[in-house]
Amino acid sequence: MATLGVDACIITSADPHLSEYPADHWKFREWISGFTGSAGTVIVTNEEAGLWTDSRYFLQAEQELEDTGIDLYRMGEPEILNYKEWLAKNLPPGSVVGVNGKNVTITELRELAKTLKLADIRLDTRFFVEEDVWEGRPTIPEDGIFELGLEYTGLSRIDKVQTIRAEMKKQDATHYIVSTLDEIAWLLNFRGQDVLFNPIFHAYVVISHNHVNLFIDPHKLTSAIGQQLAKEDVKIFLYTDFYDYIKDMPPLAKVLIDPARSNSIVHSFLPKQSTKIEKTSIITNLKAQKNTVEIENFRKAMVKDGVAMVNFLYWLDNTIGKEAITEYSAAQKLSELRAKQDNYHGDSFNTISGYAANGAIVHYAVQEETAAELKPQGLYLIDSGGQYKEGTTDITRTVVLGDITDEEKTDYTLVLKGHIGLDQAVYPIGTRGVHLDILARQAMWKHGINYGHGTGHGIGHFLCVHEGPQSIRPQDNGVEITLGMISSNEPGIYKAGKHGIRLENLILTVNDQTTDFGSFMKFETLTLCPFDRRAINISLLDKQEIEWLNNYHQKVYDQISPFLNTDMKKWLKDMTKAI
Amino acid sequence: MATLGVDACIITSADPHLSEYPADHWKFREWISGFTGSAGTVIVTNEEAGLWTDSRYFLQAEQELEDTGIDLYRMGEPEILNYKEWLAKNLPPGSVVGVNGKNVTITELRELAKTLKLADIRLDTRFFVEEDVWEGRPTIPEDGIFELGLEYTGLSRIDKVQTIRAEMKKQDATHYIVSTLDEIAWLLNFRGQDVLFNPIFHAYVVISHNHVNLFIDPHKLTSAIGQQLAKEDVKIFLYTDFYDYIKDMPPLAKVLIDPARSNSIVHSFLPKQSTKIEKTSIITNLKAQKNTVEIENFRKAMVKDGVAMVNFLYWLDNTIGKEAITEYSAAQKLSELRAKQDNYHGDSFNTISGYAANGAIVHYAVQEETAAELKPQGLYLIDSGGQYKEGTTDITRTVVLGDITDEEKTDYTLVLKGHIGLDQAVYPIGTRGVHLDILARQAMWKHGINYGHGTGHGIGHFLCVHEGPQSIRPQDNGVEITLGMISSNEPGIYKAGKHGIRLENLILTVNDQTTDFGSFMKFETLTLCPFDRRAINISLLDKQEIEWLNNYHQKVYDQISPFLNTDMKKWLKDMTKAI
Repeated sequence: MATLGVDACIITSADPHLSEYPADHWKFREWISGFTGSAGTVIVTNEEAGLWTDSRYFLQAEQELEDTGIDLYRMGEPEILNYKEWLAKNLPPGSVVGVNGKNVTITELRELAKTLKLADIRLDTRFFVEEDVWEGRPTIPEDGIFELGLEYTGLSRIDKVQTIRAEMKKQDATHYIVSTLDEIAWLLNFRGQDVLFNPIFHAYVVISHNHVNLFIDPHKLTSAIGQQLAKEDVKIFLYTDFYDYIKDMPPLAKVLIDPARSNSIVHSFLPKQSTKIEKTSIITNLKAQKNTVEIENFRKAMVKDGVAMVNFLYWLDNTIGKEAITEYSAAQKLSELRAKQDNYHGDSFNTISGYAANGAIVHYAVQEETAAELKPQGLYLIDSGGQYKEGTTDITRTVVLGDITDEEKTDYTLVLKGHIGLDQAVYPIGTRGVHLDILARQAMWKHGINYGHGTGHGIGHFLCVHEGPQSIRPQDNGVEITLGMISSNEPGIYKAGKHGIRLENLILTVNDQTTDFGSFMKFETLTLCPFDRRAINISLLDKQEIEWLNNYHQKVYDQISPFLNTDMKKWLKDMTKAI
Repeated sequence: MATLGVDACIITSADPHLSEYPADHWKFREWISGFTGSAGTVIVTNEEAGLWTDSRYFLQAEQELEDTGIDLYRMGEPEILNYKEWLAKNLPPGSVVGVNGKNVTITELRELAKTLKLADIRLDTRFFVEEDVWEGRPTIPEDGIFELGLEYTGLSRIDKVQTIRAEMKKQDATHYIVSTLDEIAWLLNFRGQDVLFNPIFHAYVVISHNHVNLFIDPHKLTSAIGQQLAKEDVKIFLYTDFYDYIKDMPPLAKVLIDPARSNSIVHSFLPKQSTKIEKTSIITNLKAQKNTVEIENFRKAMVKDGVAMVNFLYWLDNTIGKEAITEYSAAQKLSELRAKQDNYHGDSFNTISGYAANGAIVHYAVQEETAAELKPQGLYLIDSGGQYKEGTTDITRTVVLGDITDEEKTDYTLVLKGHIGLDQAVYPIGTRGVHLDILARQAMWKHGINYGHGTGHGIGHFLCVHEGPQSIRPQDNGVEITLGMISSNEPGIYKAGKHGIRLENLILTVNDQTTDFGSFMKFETLTLCPFDRRAINISLLDKQEIEWLNNYHQKVYDQISPFLNTDMKKWLKDMTKAI
């Protein structure tokens, strides 16, 4: 810090692509602090060091920070300043704070700079200290990429680029910078294996009216892919040459750049005279509205995932109380069953597997050593997903393992009512997630119960399990729900020390009807897996809710049973019979 | 315009207090154009003149503008620019546009200036042309004011000022400027009669830590009121001295001013060095959360208003088909029945009285000459309200006059389902109108029907029928619904050429319960008047909705019947019997 002339530094957990799961190469925050959680920021001053993280990680951070001399700042607790405010309060005016501008978005950097400026503190965003001090830094993954055929993607690279260029013209842009990895994978119809859970690969793309410029480690490309790209006017550059390219862009370029999806260094390297068009990345919106081929594939993925889930639930129901099962071994079992499905490419995130009171810990990360044993009593929550070439899945079921209390039954039923409430929504063009969210909560609010997370997020097509731009939650992000979007529907009830219940399906936005009053849309349920009839207090359901459940269960049976053996078929018949 | 050095001018329909109903003294737009509608802006250039108004007034404006040489710009129609864009497009760069800055809010002026600046057009906000050209301009009303006792207001002036000063301290303000008339009336516990519908009077107030400075025409005050105010350290200034006072404020004053509730001249006259604290007016929030005395009074007003409404509905039911009734005479009849109630101070707005297809015109303004005759067939919509010392009312009922179609029945029932849906809402702290709105629409959306207006607005305590800050509608204004707020609940269905249905009650936000998950609130229905059972398709209602309706009707009967004669009592019994 002294050599680099800064008085304090900020070390974030992001990579230059703002990924949800950064590769080890970018886990500098983890290396320097020993803290392995996914979310956390380290601040180092000349006198002290601190880690800011949220309640999911308080326990883990305490353990991992022991004897490091790094203080833990518990975000969200009263009196705890966020790290920006902490810096503003603790550093003398005139100080300089270093941060690697590649690991913060343009939007985040502006907010940071604003807070610090009020305290007369200057930011140095070219603080690339990891390049000097990180011994044994892992390399950027060199794994190969593979092409996802038109039978899965529905649109060729050429078609996608054409649509994008038309939109660039509308926005009067000469260049369009794409730096998030799922957008690049979607654009190019390639998938990779650089990180766990997300089938992405490391690259940057700049689209101009004549070329698609792809910055990528050439080891990742087969010669066949290289030749094909050359034919399509895709120019290949070294991954490491991206920032030089940005610096050397034509001074009069009109550059489309998404301030929430580009790191701040990309912006600062653009030629001074260039016009910066700051808008939501074109691909963000295109990618969210799944095309008919993607949707057909999603339906296939749902059958496979449903078969794996039903196999799992059957196994659980027949094994509990007979053989030892832990939260960890159950999650393992489910992954194994998913792996038996065609075109499976791993799980889409780390399975949340929580028995009884552990189910109430929303982001419970089960570990082999500390996993609880499942007993033939109470509720068990499992939130998981798979990556298939046909699509990404995300499903939560809460399962009855034995006797359950009336309170558990009531809570399960209230969550189910909320789930059905959102699933049955009909809404006009212009509706946003902020409008729909209450449909999943109204039933439990009437019982004085609520949950602290959102109700729905977007999901990628064989890409990231959390994908924007839509979001169904009380906070408004201004994004309209449009045809072809696939979202999760996942209300929950969490009672600390008692139980956790979450019920999650994926739902597709489809047409309902067009009348004199305009066009209306509704959801089609994609996920195929029974709810647990044993956990339902039928007297709390109204006629339409019962009808919805019976119809859904019939559909699950019809679509999943052909892939089951006789015993399992019988079991599913029983689990899905009308109430 | 030439003398004053401007190339075009904007004439708005506002007064310097941004009132919903300006006094005649400020109806310059009406005087210059002949257009009498409540909303409309006139633009005059050296070559042309235009009036911009919305669809409510297209027909009326066409008629009133005939032969004036003023073009009509139909806002909301395709290709029609708003007047800001029109000016930006039609005036050459370097032009100057005049506007009376007293008749635009600070926020509006900033938006206007921004649009014009892009076209290199300058604004002159001190264009007070009406002072020179308006011959026979009406004077500002000199009617007296009267005190509203503690038994109605629940809080003395002194208590209110104390609360406000505490809040000013929190906001670090030395002065607080109040310029909207309902806020001044609420603050001082006075009411006036300067305009129709709103019991306000013309004044400005500036609160400092030592004084309340009241700018008012002294004719309005009795000597008793003057003496009382002197005792309470309220300093009286001439109404016309307000702007000089603003100019002469201490240069180091820290002035709280609401940019949405102050005109732009007030802001521009403040000393340059003074600190402007731009926040929502303190009184806006205090006034919205009714105190227990106000709420008790509201309940009394609702009984009176319910008695008047039931008298009206009884009369209508027994007169239709026997004597001639028009939309106009029906509205007159209702006003007469309200006038029989104690402490009645006029209607709270111009009654909307629409028979059959006229009910589908949302802001239908009935006129004696053109009023339709009510026939013993179809539906009749009446939206009205009264001003009582105990509170302001606003109610809409849609009434069966004879045979109605199945479509009318379905639509009535869908509106009722929406009305009940919102009425039954339970919601945690932090909930805003944008979250609740869907509860009133979900039932009709499932039938491909929607309405273009908001679902709920705030209402004053013997003040304005439309009062902020809360709003229940798809557009988010960021305001949370809090305890003591009174809002309208008024979903509707409008089918052009066929029928219009709206069902409106006032609802009060009260506590529901506090649990481990926080505090939850709900609505208490205040309005007391039956819905029309004859218009309901019972098969579309679920069990809870039927229960709600029966309970509500029982409550209406219990509270209203003691004030009715035997025949009417019998009629009400019949109208409110359980379904």
